[in-house]
Amino acid sequence: MYFDKAEVLERSELEKLQVERLKKTIDLAANSPYYSESFKKNNINSSVIKTIDDVKRLPFTTKDDLRSQYPHGLLTKPLDEFVRLHASSGTTGTPTAVFYTQKDLDTWADLMARSLYAVGVRRSDILQNMSGYGLFTGGLGIHYGSERLGCLTIPAGAGNTKRQIKLIRDFNVTALHIIPSFALYFAGKVREEGYDPADMPWKIALIGAEPHTEYTRQKIEEELHIKAYNSYGLTEMNGPGVAFECTEQSGMHVWEDSYIAEIIDPETGESVPDGEIGELVMTTLTREGMPIIRYRTRDLTRFIPGQCKCGRTSKRIDRIVGRADDMLIIKGVNIYPMQIENIIMAMPEVGQNYLIELFREGFIDQIKVKVEIKDQYFVEDMRALQGLQKKIANKLRDEILVTPRVELVQHDSIPKSDGKAKRVLDLREVEA
Amino acid sequence: MYFDKAEVLERSELEKLQVERLKKTIDLAANSPYYSESFKKNNINSSVIKTIDDVKRLPFTTKDDLRSQYPHGLLTKPLDEFVRLHASSGTTGTPTAVFYTQKDLDTWADLMARSLYAVGVRRSDILQNMSGYGLFTGGLGIHYGSERLGCLTIPAGAGNTKRQIKLIRDFNVTALHIIPSFALYFAGKVREEGYDPADMPWKIALIGAEPHTEYTRQKIEEELHIKAYNSYGLTEMNGPGVAFECTEQSGMHVWEDSYIAEIIDPETGESVPDGEIGELVMTTLTREGMPIIRYRTRDLTRFIPGQCKCGRTSKRIDRIVGRADDMLIIKGVNIYPMQIENIIMAMPEVGQNYLIELFREGFIDQIKVKVEIKDQYFVEDMRALQGLQKKIANKLRDEILVTPRVELVQHDSIPKSDGKAKRVLDLREVEA
Ligand SMILES: [Zn+2]
Ligand SMILES: [Zn+2]
Repeated sequence: MYFDKAEVLERSELEKLQVERLKKTIDLAANSPYYSESFKKNNINSSVIKTIDDVKRLPFTTKDDLRSQYPHGLLTKPLDEFVRLHASSGTTGTPTAVFYTQKDLDTWADLMARSLYAVGVRRSDILQNMSGYGLFTGGLGIHYGSERLGCLTIPAGAGNTKRQIKLIRDFNVTALHIIPSFALYFAGKVREEGYDPADMPWKIALIGAEPHTEYTRQKIEEELHIKAYNSYGLTEMNGPGVAFECTEQSGMHVWEDSYIAEIIDPETGESVPDGEIGELVMTTLTREGMPIIRYRTRDLTRFIPGQCKCGRTSKRIDRIVGRADDMLIIKGVNIYPMQIENIIMAMPEVGQNYLIELFREGFIDQIKVKVEIKDQYFVEDMRALQGLQKKIANKLRDEILVTPRVELVQHDSIPKSDGKAKRVLDLREVEA
Repeated sequence: MYFDKAEVLERSELEKLQVERLKKTIDLAANSPYYSESFKKNNINSSVIKTIDDVKRLPFTTKDDLRSQYPHGLLTKPLDEFVRLHASSGTTGTPTAVFYTQKDLDTWADLMARSLYAVGVRRSDILQNMSGYGLFTGGLGIHYGSERLGCLTIPAGAGNTKRQIKLIRDFNVTALHIIPSFALYFAGKVREEGYDPADMPWKIALIGAEPHTEYTRQKIEEELHIKAYNSYGLTEMNGPGVAFECTEQSGMHVWEDSYIAEIIDPETGESVPDGEIGELVMTTLTREGMPIIRYRTRDLTRFIPGQCKCGRTSKRIDRIVGRADDMLIIKGVNIYPMQIENIIMAMPEVGQNYLIELFREGFIDQIKVKVEIKDQYFVEDMRALQGLQKKIANKLRDEILVTPRVELVQHDSIPKSDGKAKRVLDLREVEA
């Protein structure tokens, strides 16, 4: 069951399509001031692309590049060919702005419709879009995709919880687009209003607007009695609909007919093997007005090895585990704090807080993880505590490939500043 | 210069088209539970329509009718044919909900594109949509129309004044959609940020989202150094784009190929002559999913007699002067408080406040208007004051066709409650 046959292409056919579209994208991009100059400097044109691997011959594009070209430097067409603009928020500094032609909006709406379909939304569904609209791509992105799929779309926007509940009940809303950090608050409000979430008409929640953990997803599913689906997108690549989970909930399918995804070591720029975490790099293949080539997203994830049970042939990325800027290098290994958080927060014994400490013994980097343990597990039985300590250390070693020291501490013993916990304490520079 | 040749049809051709579409609308409407029953009860079918005047043979539809049919009673098709829903806000009481098929959205976007074109917006313009999105039809209505016309559309949404200014400057925004009550505040903010509105790139403002006076328009034009255009729309008739000013700024052209507009006496239901104020009644001619026939808008306006200089042949309505529910009947004449407000507030001598008093002398209704006069005009020269009094009385008589008594009072002498002035004091019942 798929929306577009591009989702189930044989790998060889897909790569042929990618090569063709990449060449076309390079030709198009050469019409923009930025890429015209960059290609000249790097002696690039579309003829350098023979196989999909040749994408690696193209230079990266960074957020700083986009900023330096603000506002019009990446446009391949005259300004009056464009019909939409989205921009990162903020009034200080240079925003990044993305421009869309009508064809770009159509392509994006098609990708969004395909994405919604992948998680089980159908044209008979009634979708309430509970995210803000405006410059944020999540609102209009889901909105256009939902209409394109033919769903009855309720542009509820953010806020006004009571009205949201009334609309959901009055119109038998079956699908929600809801920000994950709002979803749990909303579940509480539904109960406060006297309704049991199990009795609500909803079935499917799209919660990909913010990075979140598997634990948060499970919590949302339990609290709202709903299936909740993650997705990935960023304004530079249109917005939502770059990669979407399917009903298997085992990673996000990259829509590879429209995007080339690479995962690289953020230090070296070289590809990492499937299964290893690195920085996601994206290239647009179907954007005509403002193609972007090898964009360094700074988002950290990994390709999930193997095939998805759903039958789609596209590569899947795992949930985002942080930003490349957060990366720690210990004993030559790249480690991301979110990897550690995901492991320990999934353990029932662990409380609200933890702290990663980096220090040096002699010339050797060491990592220690202080973990707050819930009171009922913080018992006097040393054997039990040592067992727990060892269990955490082993689980972490399996994930980060370095054995950390683990220190179990009591609830509320890790200091907080401004109510927010500091997650990493790097003592290596201090001691050096 | 027009966007669609429907705007300049000969009256006879237009009426032929209206008759054809009205018959089709009746046939469609008969598929909805509500109209099916209503037509049966009133013995109506499309064959009763021979000329456009026969629209008067159809029963009215009121807001209460819409409420009683909430949510699905007016739909002509199965729910899964619909892709959009807008609803009046509010969590108490029954909202009114309007459903759109994809074809309805396309028709609406075309009407909006035509509307923007009529006030001089072109595809080369850059339009910043500064109204809220969501269930309010103004946001998505203008957004879709602007994209349809081919303008670069910036979905800025409401609020965040500093960011609005930054976007306008960075992207050379030439057209704004701005709520009139926000526009004057915004002008002040622009100056506070150190910019002269005369130096801003904007040229055209769409300010039709709220009823406002000619005085407010002129103020906005002066303060923002912009041409500001009024328009008329309501959710029950899709949203914005029902009637729009042209660059002549002399009334709002009703898009009569899509809507039949009538103006009736709200008491008798009979048509009033052109030029006389009454309640606007609207019939959709191009809506397939949820046609509405002879909808009592409760909005008060008049047809402007004669032809517009722009060459468009459609009827024009004047700005909304209030709600039918506000109507006063004096000596058998219908009077609307906003008519009085418009006259006196346009006079330089008049201050912030006024009060309309209705009372009875013997069996005769009388109307007195107390008018606060600015200090510099409240002089000791009785002759000058009597002259002013007479001038106000004459101007009011010309507008409301009854000669009121006029009492000039000092600044701040009319009592306010909760900071808001009471505009009408009806003493007739008390004394009767
Ligand atoms: Zn799958
Ligand atoms: Zn005109």
